[in-house]
Amino acid sequence: MYTIDELRGMVKSELEKQEYVGEPRSLYEPIIYMLADGGKRLRPLLTLLAYNLYRDDVEKALKPAIGIEIFHNYTLLHDDVMDDASLRRGRPTVHKKWNSNVAILSGDAAAITAYKYIEHCEDRYLRRGIDGFNQVALDVCRGQQYDMEFETRDDVTEEEYLRMIYLKTSVLIAGSLRHGALIAGASEEDCEALFNFGGLLGQAFQLQDDYLDVYGNVEVFGKNIGGDITTNKKTYLLVKAFELADEPTRRELTGWLGRRDADPAEKIEAITRVYSRLGVDLLTRREIDAFLRRGHVVLDELRVKQEFKDIFKEIIRELIGREK
Amino acid sequence: MYTIDELRGMVKSELEKQEYVGEPRSLYEPIIYMLADGGKRLRPLLTLLAYNLYRDDVEKALKPAIGIEIFHNYTLLHDDVMDDASLRRGRPTVHKKWNSNVAILSGDAAAITAYKYIEHCEDRYLRRGIDGFNQVALDVCRGQQYDMEFETRDDVTEEEYLRMIYLKTSVLIAGSLRHGALIAGASEEDCEALFNFGGLLGQAFQLQDDYLDVYGNVEVFGKNIGGDITTNKKTYLLVKAFELADEPTRRELTGWLGRRDADPAEKIEAITRVYSRLGVDLLTRREIDAFLRRGHVVLDELRVKQEFKDIFKEIIRELIGREK
Repeated sequence: MYTIDELRGMVKSELEKQEYVGEPRSLYEPIIYMLADGGKRLRPLLTLLAYNLYRDDVEKALKPAIGIEIFHNYTLLHDDVMDDASLRRGRPTVHKKWNSNVAILSGDAAAITAYKYIEHCEDRYLRRGIDGFNQVALDVCRGQQYDMEFETRDDVTEEEYLRMIYLKTSVLIAGSLRHGALIAGASEEDCEALFNFGGLLGQAFQLQDDYLDVYGNVEVFGKNIGGDITTNKKTYLLVKAFELADEPTRRELTGWLGRRDADPAEKIEAITRVYSRLGVDLLTRREIDAFLRRGHVVLDELRVKQEFKDIFKEIIRELIGREK
Repeated sequence: MYTIDELRGMVKSELEKQEYVGEPRSLYEPIIYMLADGGKRLRPLLTLLAYNLYRDDVEKALKPAIGIEIFHNYTLLHDDVMDDASLRRGRPTVHKKWNSNVAILSGDAAAITAYKYIEHCEDRYLRRGIDGFNQVALDVCRGQQYDMEFETRDDVTEEEYLRMIYLKTSVLIAGSLRHGALIAGASEEDCEALFNFGGLLGQAFQLQDDYLDVYGNVEVFGKNIGGDITTNKKTYLLVKAFELADEPTRRELTGWLGRRDADPAEKIEAITRVYSRLGVDLLTRREIDAFLRRGHVVLDELRVKQEFKDIFKEIIRELIGREK
């Protein structure tokens, strides 16, 4: 079985081939820009790892794997326009560097390119592969829709929030694993188990993201600290804070959320103080651990070699320890 | 073989089922809105007609056919944002009725929904079907990219312009026919012939659109007359006018294009006068006829029943006579 570093190297060189680039090059420049900066390559790695659980010739899963990475970057491209985000992984977002039209259209081209790559599999897996991917892709849109609708609500429950991030983030992580297993010929059962594991991993991953936006290190994290706070973005921390706040604290939170013209540093400091006072930071870390533990349980039930499970667990450790 | 009206009725009732609508409904409302107003249903009709050339059970081609209609409406959704268009078929565009974010995200969901519908075919046609559709979809993006780049150029040649509209508009019309034939089991040769025919039909169709923007009837056309002129949109008429203009006329055209703050009615009247003086209206009609004649030639070579060809020709006549 390949190591994570070996697989990451394969993903890197496959992307560097830029075989997806066509004419006019200007249509693809923003896609190259998005894909060039690295990122964690979490999703293609998961596809390759899942494939590698069943087969050794992982090079055959490379194109579908980077198809999923291209799809992920397409969703980021459009999300950044919708959120009017200015930084992504420490660099200007596409719609800031170019403009919104470029981000919309190159995003559209990236989505179709993703489909082209994902279908690289044996004919007998094609329909299930495309069906699964369609479902995942639609769930990502549904999650983004809920996310946008939550912006104007202050009564989002923890359950609603967890459901939203499941759709927006976790299903793609789940789908990355399932797709790798599927095209390697895994049983329906194993495909579903890996999908479930990926869903739990994704939840932990997104809560970690929420946590790091407040408690991360800006240079490592690659985004402005407190970006979610200044934009009033619903996060697990904010949802939990509203749930736990007494009346004066709730008024304090609502007051800050209502002040769109507030000094960002001041607002971040004040809301972070509320979070820490309510213990929301510790609760979030505890929830992350709970998702990871549930993930381990699903993983232990999977009937693959212990050695392979160990590699999966290695990735989880990398995720827990991540600062970006 | 079914009549056009029968097929149109089938498309209508299939769309009215709204089986594509999921949760949250808000994500799908703009798609329902786009699809509800009618439009010509040209593309799904072509898919059904092409299928019907080879098989009688056209109901089996209904889902792929409306998949192509959904895809077409997705491209309109995003194009309207990029062009900041305010009217579409006589009604406010989605990003005006809602906002840009809604148009982007519901458009994305529509694109994926299109894939879900298009893949309704026998397994043996699935890969060719998806491959063909991917290529068409990517070509549409390429065409839109060229279209946007042409906006800031005043040296676009007739050849470049025809290539751009081929990619942006005609390949989808071509692909609609090819997909219908493919999933009905037509030969590779027939699929390509229908694709070629569709490409020529699409060119005629787009030139007609350019023509009607200037010389159409606003109530029938469903868009503001002269919309292309006020927005400095490159059209066949403008490209031809620049090609044929002497130096003073060129300066007159350039002058109007430079005046973004000009009174719209005045600008439309002045540029239309230039078009008529140069005979660009007649040249455009002549070019439309030439594409249709070439289409007839390709169609005559196709080895299907004469009766079926007659129905195709009926559609062409409907297109030539169209005022919207």
